[in-house]
Amino acid sequence: MNPTLTNAWKELAQHAREWSGRHLRDVFNADPNRAQRYVAEACGIQLDYSKHRINDRSLQLLQGLAEETGVRSRRDAMFAGEKINNTEKRAVLHIALRNRGSSPILVDGQDVMPGVRKVLEHMSAFAERVRGGAWTGRGGQPITDIVNIGIGGSDLGPLMVCEALKPYGHERLRMHFVSNVDGAQIHQTLRKLDPNTTLFIIASKTFTTIETLTNAHTARDWFLASGATEADIARHFVAVSTNTPAVTKFGIAAENMFEFWDWVGGRYSLWSAIGLPIMLYIGPQHFTALLDGAYAMDQHFRSAPFERNLPVLMGLIGVWYANFLGSPSLVIAPYNQNLHRLPAYLQQLDMESNGKGVRADGAKVDYATGPIIWGEPGINGQHAYFQLLHQGTHLIPLDFILALKQQDLDPKHHAILIASCFAQAAALMRGKTGDEVRAELDKAGTTGERTELLIKHKTFEGNRPSSMLLLETLDPLHLGALIALYEHKIFVQGAVWGINSYDQWGVELGKQLASGIENALTGDGGALDYDASTQRLIALAKERVNLKR
Amino acid sequence: MNPTLTNAWKELAQHAREWSGRHLRDVFNADPNRAQRYVAEACGIQLDYSKHRINDRSLQLLQGLAEETGVRSRRDAMFAGEKINNTEKRAVLHIALRNRGSSPILVDGQDVMPGVRKVLEHMSAFAERVRGGAWTGRGGQPITDIVNIGIGGSDLGPLMVCEALKPYGHERLRMHFVSNVDGAQIHQTLRKLDPNTTLFIIASKTFTTIETLTNAHTARDWFLASGATEADIARHFVAVSTNTPAVTKFGIAAENMFEFWDWVGGRYSLWSAIGLPIMLYIGPQHFTALLDGAYAMDQHFRSAPFERNLPVLMGLIGVWYANFLGSPSLVIAPYNQNLHRLPAYLQQLDMESNGKGVRADGAKVDYATGPIIWGEPGINGQHAYFQLLHQGTHLIPLDFILALKQQDLDPKHHAILIASCFAQAAALMRGKTGDEVRAELDKAGTTGERTELLIKHKTFEGNRPSSMLLLETLDPLHLGALIALYEHKIFVQGAVWGINSYDQWGVELGKQLASGIENALTGDGGALDYDASTQRLIALAKERVNLKR
Repeated sequence: MNPTLTNAWKELAQHAREWSGRHLRDVFNADPNRAQRYVAEACGIQLDYSKHRINDRSLQLLQGLAEETGVRSRRDAMFAGEKINNTEKRAVLHIALRNRGSSPILVDGQDVMPGVRKVLEHMSAFAERVRGGAWTGRGGQPITDIVNIGIGGSDLGPLMVCEALKPYGHERLRMHFVSNVDGAQIHQTLRKLDPNTTLFIIASKTFTTIETLTNAHTARDWFLASGATEADIARHFVAVSTNTPAVTKFGIAAENMFEFWDWVGGRYSLWSAIGLPIMLYIGPQHFTALLDGAYAMDQHFRSAPFERNLPVLMGLIGVWYANFLGSPSLVIAPYNQNLHRLPAYLQQLDMESNGKGVRADGAKVDYATGPIIWGEPGINGQHAYFQLLHQGTHLIPLDFILALKQQDLDPKHHAILIASCFAQAAALMRGKTGDEVRAELDKAGTTGERTELLIKHKTFEGNRPSSMLLLETLDPLHLGALIALYEHKIFVQGAVWGINSYDQWGVELGKQLASGIENALTGDGGALDYDASTQRLIALAKERVNLKR
Repeated sequence: MNPTLTNAWKELAQHAREWSGRHLRDVFNADPNRAQRYVAEACGIQLDYSKHRINDRSLQLLQGLAEETGVRSRRDAMFAGEKINNTEKRAVLHIALRNRGSSPILVDGQDVMPGVRKVLEHMSAFAERVRGGAWTGRGGQPITDIVNIGIGGSDLGPLMVCEALKPYGHERLRMHFVSNVDGAQIHQTLRKLDPNTTLFIIASKTFTTIETLTNAHTARDWFLASGATEADIARHFVAVSTNTPAVTKFGIAAENMFEFWDWVGGRYSLWSAIGLPIMLYIGPQHFTALLDGAYAMDQHFRSAPFERNLPVLMGLIGVWYANFLGSPSLVIAPYNQNLHRLPAYLQQLDMESNGKGVRADGAKVDYATGPIIWGEPGINGQHAYFQLLHQGTHLIPLDFILALKQQDLDPKHHAILIASCFAQAAALMRGKTGDEVRAELDKAGTTGERTELLIKHKTFEGNRPSSMLLLETLDPLHLGALIALYEHKIFVQGAVWGINSYDQWGVELGKQLASGIENALTGDGGALDYDASTQRLIALAKERVNLKR
């Protein structure tokens, strides 16, 4: 359905006008109690959303919008295994991958849970052997290095989680992630490794992804060039895929292929066999905790009333900025260093899901959908992009993310980290008035014209909104909950906008064109029905670098 | 001056309307010759800007805007050492750091070049000793690991360049970068290191940056805990700073302090002593090539006519999107994996420079200034955020960046890389029509309602603009030119907007608040004149985690 035709949308558009010219500083002064009221908590994650341009009326209207657009029934349809990915006729069941309850989840009348449990057991048994040293390389030594070769969803999730949970990683195992088809990445990675103690995971659902297969074959060639035989491949390569013939042809034993299903989208797949590198690194027990955290958030999303429902609140606040206050982007600012790849992970999760211009029914939207998601660790951002957040001309809400506790917590460091995070959120909200700057300049002895000039430059408008997401601690359980929170936030927004968040046609077109251009670059040309610029670029590349087959 | 009052601005606003509803596909069909005409080249970098929503008239008006807003005279003022950073009363002379010519550059009547050359010699002599093994740790062994401790400009530039030039790095030296005050980063780094063969570079102009000094002291404590004496510090710690007393008090020998000047902004400082980790890693000769590349671009920027001037063209095209076509952001999509930190580097460079809301004269702007800069390596992006670029609701221009050659070039891989890059640019521009989709679906045997639904989802509007930046090769020379190109692009935009691109008041406010909050977290409180949300957060953090001094 078209959300702009709901009553709530019209009222929100009206209501948004009331917020023009209203400053959050004044809003806080008038109602300090909002600091207590606009807090919700679930699964060890607390969301403080008081520093947003919202009040009770805004929230009420936004929840009304969720009701009118059918977020509730759509959520229930997802959990029930209905084929809500309508363009691909598929169920959307990442929630089944972490279903720790005993109820079945049916797709076409079949319970998917036995299959899910079987693959998890397969992964666990393998992980225990590698971690314990029972699984050895061809020389009989335990594995020391694991190289995950995959791209997109087969890369970003495992990479992000392994970095986030570094203190939980196995001491002997070093993790490497190769995604880019640029030969520099695979060659620079291989150069550091011992083929006799390296395990490769080739992660590609179809086992045809060109970047992944090209890297996989280069790894295979390197391995064989070290003196290994084709028969040794089975000890050093495993696959996460559904294409048994291609996997076995590569030399991987069928029993070392870890399966998943068409109801798992790549960007929602770290809970599945795609998470194998995570399980190898942190072990089955911690991996289970990751699932537990996500499951707890699933239960919260399913059952908590909208006014205390974290994904619903975050989703609706995002809709408010995107569609009523005109903000096209959202910053993800994690403060804990080990979360440094979270922004890139969420960038894919959100933008690939909600970067859509037609509704599920095929109608073209005439309102903004998914925002631009970007960010770098917050404390580094303070010395970089935060300048624009404070004094630039764009309205850019932020998600501050901070774990209060973690392994490797050094109190002296952590106090500064926490203080910086809170201080930035406060500074963005309150700003600094001209009078405050004048008082400071007077104190410093600045006078005359210089004072007047500096007041203008050192005044901060403030009124910059943000969410504060506090994790009790940075561990597998809370990380699982955090990731699921964002998955469901994205779900809520997709449902409000009426789009299908689970296809990704935008990935296809470039692939088709690329193969034609690759032929032109490596062969003798052929019919070039590209635009004039692309033709010129191809000719130039052929002239400058020899790529002939 | 206010750029909106120029004639060019008014004409551009008028002209922008002509572009509404006009598709780049048609523009190319009507004038294929634009592929040849809209190309400029300098210093081994070629810019193809034909896939932008521009024509001869647009370019002419934009160049007129540059003339009217005084870009030319402002550029000359920068090169002449005038104090164009008016709020801080400073010259802006990163161009002096790579001035390979013999002319003096005067600041307050004094030539800065002898000082620049002296520091470069100081750096070279030190780098040669460390690289050659003459500089040894306290046990007499050569240095194996270098840890750069710095944040913002003292981190992003050296980190980005060391990654970009990995194939030029010294075989024995492993580089580490610690920026986050989160103790996890320094502790996880130190755990891997041997104190007897580790060299720390503490990079902080004032030697008071709290994140950097906290990390530096933790490194110092770790070093001393290994059995080293205070006297050994001088062999294992050097500083990049201007604060001799603080540096020597830390235990660093005055002769191991590398200086820079107040006319070097942090985000423009990798050419200065802040680049010491780069020089240690790639050696003085390659570092000189980096400077040579930047110098060549400086000469180009100074002398090339605006219509062939790369920084001017890129700057003006950005202004066109920001101020006339309503686009708030720019994607940086490097295809070579070793450029993976370039987006984060440019994010700081651009957003900290041009994220300003008042003009240099103090007047509040009523037009958009600096854009949101974001991105991840392009080929990974194709499997992630590109979905939104293709089918989302925002207009987002991209800079595709591709080096045609590089070390570690594997032709099989590289052909795919180049083809993918060209294909994405082509696909974004041309899109895919409903008729094209229908023909494909017919061929695949899809019928009826399903065809009609899929046509709507698989149609790509196209008309998405991008620049293609081709580097002859990824080496120090071309990287230097590329970085300088972006520096000057940012300069051009700042000049058009009339803002001071060289201060960063937005970094200050948070610092003040943070120190008060840190006291509240670690002490017994004190007067809390924060907003109610911040007060609640402080109380919560105190309750949940013990940070008492």
